[in-house]
Amino acid sequence: MVEKTVCPIAKSQLVVGDRWTMLILRELFMGNCRFEGLQAQTEATPQMLAARIKKLEADGMTERFPYNTRPLRYEYKLTAKGQAFFPVVLALRAWGETWCKLPDEGLAVRLIHLHCGQDAGLGPTCQSCGAPLYQNELIQELGSKFKKERAARNKAFRTRTG
Amino acid sequence: MVEKTVCPIAKSQLVVGDRWTMLILRELFMGNCRFEGLQAQTEATPQMLAARIKKLEADGMTERFPYNTRPLRYEYKLTAKGQAFFPVVLALRAWGETWCKLPDEGLAVRLIHLHCGQDAGLGPTCQSCGAPLYQNELIQELGSKFKKERAARNKAFRTRTG
Repeated sequence: MVEKTVCPIAKSQLVVGDRWTMLILRELFMGNCRFEGLQAQTEATPQMLAARIKKLEADGMTERFPYNTRPLRYEYKLTAKGQAFFPVVLALRAWGETWCKLPDEGLAVRLIHLHCGQDAGLGPTCQSCGAPLYQNELIQELGSKFKKERAARNKAFRTRTG
Repeated sequence: MVEKTVCPIAKSQLVVGDRWTMLILRELFMGNCRFEGLQAQTEATPQMLAARIKKLEADGMTERFPYNTRPLRYEYKLTAKGQAFFPVVLALRAWGETWCKLPDEGLAVRLIHLHCGQDAGLGPTCQSCGAPLYQNELIQELGSKFKKERAARNKAFRTRTG
């Protein structure tokens, strides 16, 4: 892996070129921002997750804020650099939905565009009103299969960790 | 890693969640589509490269076409599924150029928009004419540093392989 390069693709891959990291970013964009929730939904081990979160922080993608003091627990939030990654996640979603799905799986997440109140579609512009899609103008509605899948992962996590 | 999921991000990562694979896709989008050229510019070992190319083919991202018969040699071309990945590469480029570069590095590649003849900028729409950017309407102009970097990799490869 070339570390000394001016190529933005190669550089981006030094930060996000890891599938676990991409799943963590997906979760943070979904508002799932505590360690246990991330563990449940990514199905990473605590060690793998902790290493990725540490690297994301070192790369300036996330910051942590305590939400509990005894014991000390943190929430992870995307920085401006992390939030600016949203168009990549949106483009990956569009490509994945179009090219990597089975016929009966349905949309994992429907995005409602607050700007016009309609289904935003796959982007990068709103299929209903044509405006560019920004993360803070979108509401996520989970499809039934993705909702079930996530509930099952939460349940399995609770069973695993007692 | 969850293999049984309807999530398009998780699914996409089963195909492209590897930094070498992303570098190979970058090269194919740049028109560098033979094994030795890919080896030179990704700096992957022949084994690593062959494994990624095989997987890209199995995932329906690339196809190979012989360009020489004795010895038999192939060119790798993006399929429709592979070409549809362009918006992700474009979004990664925009994010990487904006958030991962040093001040003096300059743009790695300038994209000229054939539609209007002007600099397309970072997308997803043309900064000059506002139209959405499609790969077949863009010409790539390598920046001086990226050009030097690529020439050095080609030279190092030729030295390595005699």
